[in-house]
Amino acid sequence: MKLLLIGGSDAGISAGLIAKELAPHTQVDMLLLDEFPNYSICGIPFFLSGEVPDVHNLAHRTAKDIEDAGIHVHVNHTAVAIHPDRHEVIAVTPDGKERVFSYDRLVIGTGAVPIKPALPGIDYPGVFLVHSMDDSLAIHQFLQTHRPEHAVIVGAGYIGLEMADALRHRQMGVTLVEKGLSVHPTIDRDWGHHLGQYLVEQGINLHVDTEITAIQQDGARLIVKGTAKFHTSTDMVIVVVGVKPNTALAQQTGIRTGMFNAIEVNPYMETNLPDIYAAGDCVLTHHQLLKRLTYLPLGTTAHKQGRIAGAHAVGHAIPFKGSLGTQVVKVFDWAVARTGLSDAEAQTAGYSPLSVTLKNWDHKIYYPGATPLWVRMTGDRHTGALLGTQIMGHWQGEVAKRIDIIATALYQQLSVADLMDLDLSYTPPLSSPWDPVQMAAHSWISAHRPSGS
Amino acid sequence: MKLLLIGGSDAGISAGLIAKELAPHTQVDMLLLDEFPNYSICGIPFFLSGEVPDVHNLAHRTAKDIEDAGIHVHVNHTAVAIHPDRHEVIAVTPDGKERVFSYDRLVIGTGAVPIKPALPGIDYPGVFLVHSMDDSLAIHQFLQTHRPEHAVIVGAGYIGLEMADALRHRQMGVTLVEKGLSVHPTIDRDWGHHLGQYLVEQGINLHVDTEITAIQQDGARLIVKGTAKFHTSTDMVIVVVGVKPNTALAQQTGIRTGMFNAIEVNPYMETNLPDIYAAGDCVLTHHQLLKRLTYLPLGTTAHKQGRIAGAHAVGHAIPFKGSLGTQVVKVFDWAVARTGLSDAEAQTAGYSPLSVTLKNWDHKIYYPGATPLWVRMTGDRHTGALLGTQIMGHWQGEVAKRIDIIATALYQQLSVADLMDLDLSYTPPLSSPWDPVQMAAHSWISAHRPSGS
Repeated sequence: MKLLLIGGSDAGISAGLIAKELAPHTQVDMLLLDEFPNYSICGIPFFLSGEVPDVHNLAHRTAKDIEDAGIHVHVNHTAVAIHPDRHEVIAVTPDGKERVFSYDRLVIGTGAVPIKPALPGIDYPGVFLVHSMDDSLAIHQFLQTHRPEHAVIVGAGYIGLEMADALRHRQMGVTLVEKGLSVHPTIDRDWGHHLGQYLVEQGINLHVDTEITAIQQDGARLIVKGTAKFHTSTDMVIVVVGVKPNTALAQQTGIRTGMFNAIEVNPYMETNLPDIYAAGDCVLTHHQLLKRLTYLPLGTTAHKQGRIAGAHAVGHAIPFKGSLGTQVVKVFDWAVARTGLSDAEAQTAGYSPLSVTLKNWDHKIYYPGATPLWVRMTGDRHTGALLGTQIMGHWQGEVAKRIDIIATALYQQLSVADLMDLDLSYTPPLSSPWDPVQMAAHSWISAHRPSGS
Repeated sequence: MKLLLIGGSDAGISAGLIAKELAPHTQVDMLLLDEFPNYSICGIPFFLSGEVPDVHNLAHRTAKDIEDAGIHVHVNHTAVAIHPDRHEVIAVTPDGKERVFSYDRLVIGTGAVPIKPALPGIDYPGVFLVHSMDDSLAIHQFLQTHRPEHAVIVGAGYIGLEMADALRHRQMGVTLVEKGLSVHPTIDRDWGHHLGQYLVEQGINLHVDTEITAIQQDGARLIVKGTAKFHTSTDMVIVVVGVKPNTALAQQTGIRTGMFNAIEVNPYMETNLPDIYAAGDCVLTHHQLLKRLTYLPLGTTAHKQGRIAGAHAVGHAIPFKGSLGTQVVKVFDWAVARTGLSDAEAQTAGYSPLSVTLKNWDHKIYYPGATPLWVRMTGDRHTGALLGTQIMGHWQGEVAKRIDIIATALYQQLSVADLMDLDLSYTPPLSSPWDPVQMAAHSWISAHRPSGS
């Protein structure tokens, strides 16, 4: 059995590893666009901040680990054509020649590429996108060579927030520009305002409701112009306005795609073409609560989907159960996390949401170091079902794993009331007898109760 | 409606608060043995360590908060008799008189008392039990007045471990003596050894497999003798060898008790006598996995049971779903947590357990500050059901809330394989794309898979 992987990031490597684990005699070949198999692209901001001194540390596994696991890695091989009828992939090798790889099963894990807005000046030196290892090395090189003192970051989503933190860590001045009305558009707007205020306290020059319209050269510097009379001189510009699935190859092969041109797959990650799977940031993902396909490119999901594709390719059928959009980001000393649906998302999806917000402490206030924790919980008025939760607080306040309690509850479609029954751990330095997520559930239940009953 | 509460700790206060919330016109009276309503007895070690400077900070709520919630607190009132037929409780007031309290519904929340071993010398000055606020104040007084330089702690369960940490925090010499073969008897023995080694590194003089046989006076000092030729001179002795339910009053009233003389209750916390409830450390608790009654005195459970008793007393039936024995303790910089069943407990209960242990990192190793995390996961060989997990690591490595992911999964009887489907949060400073609990699940699945398949 020959398993061929196009792409060597989370989805591809996961597919290869599980295939070798379940069916050790499988021949697994991986075509890699660059020289960085299984790198943690989520780690790039921490490399650029200087917190991770050596870029090679970003590898989840070394090339040797991967070869030892029995996966043949072909670096600098660009897949240019898939022939489903002949079960072949054509790749261009580092010396510019074409080479044919035959397969019994193929997993497409081509990931996503950053959205490059049609912005005058976006190709000037000193203007960067952030996604691939090559992008990352280019920025690193620029930071080392030019010693910039100031950057404009365009886009205040996850990567924009992490890059703002990273460049402040380097003592640089940072101007963060967001088109929307608040930073971190996947949390509720009032929380985005709250987080934005915190960023300002960390020395970030923040402009929301501002769209960049042009970048101009001014000697060695760049002039960045935008709506709301935005006009700034800077040393570098980082554009992080989202990603889109990298599916040109799949599309030219006749593989069916849906919204955003992401690949459509069934629960076993099979595409419409026989023996061809796709997984990770290039596919549409089933959402457990929306009960429909969404585009939610996340490393956690890519790992799961790769595992499912690889297992199915060697005869083990484990269906993908879907995503809840669980996410956490650390920005300076805060962590901001979410899972499931926000109030607005639940409304749009046809639920009847009720949301409550509770500010509490991450642990008993009498024990030193207690920090505030905000929990916003959303449930359905009619059914009492838990729909989603957002949590914000100090990153060492167990924000991330508290959101995971909720993600685990959502997986089982628990009600908000069920949360009160959970036997969660407690010691004064780490929680309260009712965990803050249970206190929020209690508030929700009180708010939901018909008055007078 | 008159609701009477005997006891003002976790169970009693929870019963009173929910009754007032659900039925505001209820008259709620609380009989309190001492002057400390709703104090966090779990916080006592942190008061004695000096980390909590003022004992009043240990109150979950102030007396005023409780009165404001509409609960009448009668301090220094000792309930001495219950007359179920007349729906009356007799209490001795601070001035030594008897006073009759009538009730429509009664909640017994008399808690537990420390086990006082029949040890020669246990009543000497300088020898202490740790449970009530009075115990706590007596120890504090002794620490302040005598400035002891060394203590012997008898018992290395939760409180013994926390007290060892607390007294080291005061720069005292600590000898910790445990009858069993390892410290922390509710985790597996090899982990207990591991933790014991860590305690030694923190300067604790540790003696396991040693039973104290006598305490003698030697001028202002105490001589402590035990098996294995244990013989030590010290300034004070703290005896923390467990608790037992405080149910003399209930028993003399004809309320049915079971093992350890703990009160038997139904899922609504009703005793065998009409209109009399019991909750907290004085009752037997249904265990979700053992599917039988156990004695598991924990603050978290007491809060839940009190809430259920109080709600039912005013006409809201919410059954108690049972405990999983979820616990966490912080000892120096480590947290040790467990939920569900250990391998040995599962074996005894008739399951066919398989356990795997995985050492990993709390977050991506490339991000600064990663600390080791040990996860031991137990599942059933036949059904694949998740049975329990133990986690040990740095207390800021989200040990506590990771065990809560497992507790939440156990609530609905997930399989180990289901854990791989959970959409858990990830960012490099806080986890990995597969959370360590999922990596442990993966190891379990691999170990469980028939070889060759």
